Amino acid sequence: MPRYKLTVEYDGTAYAGWQRQADVPSVQQALEEAVSRFLDTPTELTVAGRTDAGVHASGQVAHFDSPRALEPRSIVLGINSYLLQHRISVLSGEPVDDDFHARFSAVERRYRYRILNRLGKPSLAMGQVWHLPYAIDVDAMRQAAAMLVGHHDFSSFRSPFCQAKSPMRTLDVLDVQRVGEEIHIETAARSFLHNQVRIMVGTLKEVGRGKWPLAKVAAALEKKNRTAGGPTAPSQGLCLISVRYPK
Amino acid sequence: MPRYKLTVEYDGTAYAGWQRQADVPSVQQALEEAVSRFLDTPTELTVAGRTDAGVHASGQVAHFDSPRALEPRSIVLGINSYLLQHRISVLSGEPVDDDFHARFSAVERRYRYRILNRLGKPSLAMGQVWHLPYAIDVDAMRQAAAMLVGHHDFSSFRSPFCQAKSPMRTLDVLDVQRVGEEIHIETAARSFLHNQVRIMVGTLKEVGRGKWPLAKVAAALEKKNRTAGGPTAPSQGLCLISVRYPK
Repeated sequence: MPRYKLTVEYDGTAYAGWQRQADVPSVQQALEEAVSRFLDTPTELTVAGRTDAGVHASGQVAHFDSPRALEPRSIVLGINSYLLQHRISVLSGEPVDDDFHARFSAVERRYRYRILNRLGKPSLAMGQVWHLPYAIDVDAMRQAAAMLVGHHDFSSFRSPFCQAKSPMRTLDVLDVQRVGEEIHIETAARSFLHNQVRIMVGTLKEVGRGKWPLAKVAAALEKKNRTAGGPTAPSQGLCLISVRYPK
Repeated sequence: MPRYKLTVEYDGTAYAGWQRQADVPSVQQALEEAVSRFLDTPTELTVAGRTDAGVHASGQVAHFDSPRALEPRSIVLGINSYLLQHRISVLSGEPVDDDFHARFSAVERRYRYRILNRLGKPSLAMGQVWHLPYAIDVDAMRQAAAMLVGHHDFSSFRSPFCQAKSPMRTLDVLDVQRVGEEIHIETAARSFLHNQVRIMVGTLKEVGRGKWPLAKVAAALEKKNRTAGGPTAPSQGLCLISVRYPK
């Protein structure tokens, strides 16, 4: 059975996250139904990153096995024709080797967190930004971010429900940038712990608003305990923007 | 009575346009209600540009007269506190001279039209872009745009319902730019005819997809008849981004 890689965009607002759950709408359920109708056979998807409720994606990746060979263009148009009622879109569909695995082959996941830093509440970007209506020191956030980059025990930056065996992760990128009225925090790693990005963002926000000195970020990392980390930033500012695979 | 200038953002999706109408939600109605509750007195707004149903704004301007002096910060926070159920936000409120008029003092209105030019339908930008899933020649659009800039009779580019006395307008800016997966068309003039921006965009799209040669754009301008212009682009891609006043 030929294997295909999908790149998927979605607005997570209306979904209880990627993962299929009883009685609530999920991205996985909507997309698996669309793929199954397109292929006319029940089809399961394997995803690169199981995003939480309210989290968005502009470059999520999933794979499936098809009973027949498919044309890239018809994959996009065919599956999307069953997603008209959903804020979920297939952006591309391409054949991959049998040993390609959306989750295990991934070498980098990249997220962007959007903060709207102005007095007025969001309207056009509602549901896609975290609204912080006070002065934020982006340089201080950048210095704090630099302390988190590298190979660390991120126990203070993981959800108590995180099921990963090891709290060790290598953070390759954690950039903070002002873009007009917004502050964008972009981060990349081979993998992240549960809620790691949102807790890092919540911590950087405490630094940016002047409540946390830099030393407290270093101490949080050392204490290896969730209570030492900052608050968890809300889900709606977060977007999975890309997943990278070996050439 | 002191006069105040509001800068306003809104997502026009849920509204029948700026203007108050019976039995349908309008931006004017929601915003006038919020201002009236904030001031605790019935208050009318005068707006710079009456946007159509579905059209957005990131820099709409309106003015009102207040029975008392107001602080800029409290204008924003106070009015927005009555707009939590709406995708409408006041971005700034500032005192202006008594002779300031949101509509008649304006010297430039600037709009941006967003086209999403990719195969997959929009999800994150749904309701804020026009989806064109085929190849578009942006250079050709740019050449056509250059033909419309200047002082012209725009009869072929106005709605049959346009109530302006003269079809003459001076188009100062009509730029076409590729921005990632999007094509942005930015345009500025002292004022526009009804539907002028959307008809210009619809015409440029015919050029961009190769259906109209440049000569047909010149001919459309010369014929001075709506039937000679291109189709009216859908409202959801359009956003009023700024209104400029004399210093």
